[in-house]
Amino acid sequence: MELDVISKLAKRNNSKIVMLVMDGIGGLPIEEDGPTELERANTPNLDSIASKSVCGLQLPVGSGITPGSGPGHLGIFGYDPIKYKVGRGVLAALGIGFDLQPGDVAARGNFCTVDEKDLVVDRRAGRISSEKNMELCKKICENVDCGVDLFVQTVKEHRFLLVLRSQGLSGDLFDTDPQAVGVKPLEPKGFSKNADKTVSIVRDFLDQTKKVLSDEHPANMVLLRGFSTKPDWPLFPDVFGLRSAAIACYPMYRGLARLIGMDLLETGQTISDEFSTLEKKWDDYDFFFLHVKKTDSYGEDGNFSSKVSVIEEVDGLIPRLTGLNPDVVVVTGDHSTPSLLKAHSWHPVPVMIYSNQCRPDNVKKFGERDCVSGGLGPRFPGVEIMPIAMANALRLEKFGA
Amino acid sequence: MELDVISKLAKRNNSKIVMLVMDGIGGLPIEEDGPTELERANTPNLDSIASKSVCGLQLPVGSGITPGSGPGHLGIFGYDPIKYKVGRGVLAALGIGFDLQPGDVAARGNFCTVDEKDLVVDRRAGRISSEKNMELCKKICENVDCGVDLFVQTVKEHRFLLVLRSQGLSGDLFDTDPQAVGVKPLEPKGFSKNADKTVSIVRDFLDQTKKVLSDEHPANMVLLRGFSTKPDWPLFPDVFGLRSAAIACYPMYRGLARLIGMDLLETGQTISDEFSTLEKKWDDYDFFFLHVKKTDSYGEDGNFSSKVSVIEEVDGLIPRLTGLNPDVVVVTGDHSTPSLLKAHSWHPVPVMIYSNQCRPDNVKKFGERDCVSGGLGPRFPGVEIMPIAMANALRLEKFGA
Repeated sequence: MELDVISKLAKRNNSKIVMLVMDGIGGLPIEEDGPTELERANTPNLDSIASKSVCGLQLPVGSGITPGSGPGHLGIFGYDPIKYKVGRGVLAALGIGFDLQPGDVAARGNFCTVDEKDLVVDRRAGRISSEKNMELCKKICENVDCGVDLFVQTVKEHRFLLVLRSQGLSGDLFDTDPQAVGVKPLEPKGFSKNADKTVSIVRDFLDQTKKVLSDEHPANMVLLRGFSTKPDWPLFPDVFGLRSAAIACYPMYRGLARLIGMDLLETGQTISDEFSTLEKKWDDYDFFFLHVKKTDSYGEDGNFSSKVSVIEEVDGLIPRLTGLNPDVVVVTGDHSTPSLLKAHSWHPVPVMIYSNQCRPDNVKKFGERDCVSGGLGPRFPGVEIMPIAMANALRLEKFGA
Repeated sequence: MELDVISKLAKRNNSKIVMLVMDGIGGLPIEEDGPTELERANTPNLDSIASKSVCGLQLPVGSGITPGSGPGHLGIFGYDPIKYKVGRGVLAALGIGFDLQPGDVAARGNFCTVDEKDLVVDRRAGRISSEKNMELCKKICENVDCGVDLFVQTVKEHRFLLVLRSQGLSGDLFDTDPQAVGVKPLEPKGFSKNADKTVSIVRDFLDQTKKVLSDEHPANMVLLRGFSTKPDWPLFPDVFGLRSAAIACYPMYRGLARLIGMDLLETGQTISDEFSTLEKKWDDYDFFFLHVKKTDSYGEDGNFSSKVSVIEEVDGLIPRLTGLNPDVVVVTGDHSTPSLLKAHSWHPVPVMIYSNQCRPDNVKKFGERDCVSGGLGPRFPGVEIMPIAMANALRLEKFGA
C-alpha cells in the first residue's frame, strides 16, 4: 500500500505503539535440525506476547534480497526501500551522526594512493589508521576553500565523509572512484544538467585536495562515491499522524530515524537504559522505535551463544514494556544476521504484532519455524507492518463507504 | 523484484545451481482424500532433500492462471510472464526447433478451407494429415516469392509455421484468422506504423499462396495469427552472471532456454541420459536447467499411475545429482498437470530450494499438502525462485548499506 493511501486514512487517538527492533534477529541453525539463535533462546516473555499476537516472517525488501541497515529499517517503517532509496553518501553521514541539512550534498570518500602518473595504486591507501585519517581531514578542512561550506569528517580507517553545503547543489554526480587500480581517478561528471555547479565545485575540491595531500604517503589522493542529497520524503510523523520517538544508541539508526522525522531521545548505552528512556518518555509520544543493536553485532561476529544471550536479555526486559500497557507492540528486526553466515542475510525476519484486537493465530513461541505458520504468513512484506500496526491501534479510517 | 535490481546485485563465485523441472509435476487426487501423483509416488530421495530445504508451492504466472509451457518456464527462470510475453508465432518456432534469428517475424499458420466466395468453411481444413501438410508447405516454398527469405514449415496436422526474414520487418500485425466460419479471412493489417512493409509482404504472401493452393482440397487457403519477433530481452546468463546450460530433449524447452541465452547441451532421450549429461558437463557451467517432460505427458494423458512412475524414476536418479554436491538445488515444475484434468492447470506447483544456508522448515516430504506449510508459503510467486536461488548460492550483494 502506498504511503499516501495510508496517510489519507490515518486518524489520531490516544493509543501507543511500540516497535521493538532487534537488529539482525533472524538466524539459522548451526547444526542439522538444530535451533536458530531465537529458537535456542529462553524467551518466556516474548513467547507470551507471541501467543496473543498475529505472527509471521517478513521481508524488509524482497525475496532473496539481503537488506542493508538503511533499506531494512525503511521497510519496517513503511517506506518501500525499492522506491525510497537513500544515497550512500547520506548513509555515511547518518552513520557518523552528521546533522545533514536539506540541500546538503554528501559523498563517501576514500583516502587512496596514486603514483607519479596519477594512476591509482591502492584504493584504500593501505587502510591508514583512523587517527591519521583525522589528521588528514583536519588538514583538508584548513587548507581547501571552494567557496561553499565544506565538511570533511573521519569515518574509519581510510574512509571519510564529504559534505558540501550551499544553494543550488545537486547529488547527480557519478563516482570519481574508478573501482580499479592502474587507472586515474575519474573526472567529476554529472548525470543531469543541474549538476554543473556541483561538478565544478567537486573538481575544485579535488584539485586543491591533491595539492594539500601531495607530501603525504600513502594517502596522497581521495576518491569519492555515492553523491547524494538528503531526501525530500514524506515524514513518518506526518504520514501516520504519530508523535514519534527513536530510542537508539548507534548513530546510523538515530540518523535514519531523524531522516524520516522522528525525535531522537537521549538514552544510555545498555538495553536496560533504552527501556528506562521508554518509561521516562512514555507520556510524550504515540510511537516509539526501540533499537537493539547487539543481536546484529554478535551475528556478524559469528557468535551464536552471545546472540542467544542478548535475545534473553531483551526478553528479561519485556515486562517493563508490557507494564506500560502499550496498545500495539511490534517485535521484529530489520533483516536476519545468522551467526552461521556472519553477515546480513536474505532470510525472512520473525515478526509479531500484538494488540487487543489483533486476531491471534496458533503460534505460541517467537521463533523462525513457529512463525512460518503465523497469521501474517511466512513471507510477509515488511512495508505492511506499519499499516497493520496503525489498524491495530484503531488509527485508520475505513477505506471507502 | 525486477530483473534489473537482481542484475545489479549479482556477483560471481564458484557455486553451482541445479534447477530440476518436472514438467507439470503438480497434481490432484483422483479419489476423495486420496493422494496426488507426487504424494502417491515413493520418493525417499526427494523427501530427503525436502527435509533440508525451504519448501512451498509456487505460482509461475499468478493466481488462477493456467500457464502455457512458455510463460510457466519464463516464470521459474525469473522473467515475469506478464511482462515478458512471447508471441505465439515465436513459440511455434521454438516448438519445432526452428532457429529464429533477430529480426525474423514468425506466425502460426492454419491450413483452412474457403468456399467460392472466399468465406471460411473450416478453419482447420478437416485436420489434414501432417504428411499432407508437409507436401503443401513444400509447394508453397517452391512457388511463392515475396522478395524476402521465406520459411513455411509443418508443425502438425493443419498447423504450420511461417517465418519471414529480411531487414526492417515488424511483428505488429493483427491476425488474419477471423476465428469464425462464414466470413472471409481478415486482410493483413498492422497496429503500428512500422508494420507497413510487413503488411504488404504478408498480403503478397497470402495472394500468391491462395493461387498455389487453388487446386487443393480441403486445404485451399491459410490463416495466420500470433505475428511476433524474437524478443530482445536481457539474457539469463547476463542477468544472473551464471554460465547456464539447458538439458532438455523436446524442441520447445530447448527453444525457450535458447531464447534467454542458455547453452543447449546434447543429450539422449531418457531421463537417465539427461543426468549423464549433467555429470559430464558439471565443470563447465554454473547453472543447469534439467527438464523432465514425461510427468506432463502422462498428466495430459490422464495416466495417474504412469505419472507416479516417472516421478519415482526421477527420484531414483536423484543420488546422481546430489553426488555432484551442488550448492543449490531447486526442484519444481513449470505448472501443474493433474491427470484428473488431463491438462495444464492453475494449481500452485510444489517447489523446494536446498542449500547449506536455506533455513529449512518443518516439511519432510515433497508433496502438495506438505508443501502448504513450507517456509516459502502456499502461493509463492514463481518469479522469486531465481532471486532466492541466487541468494542461497551467495551470489547476491547486499542491497544498500
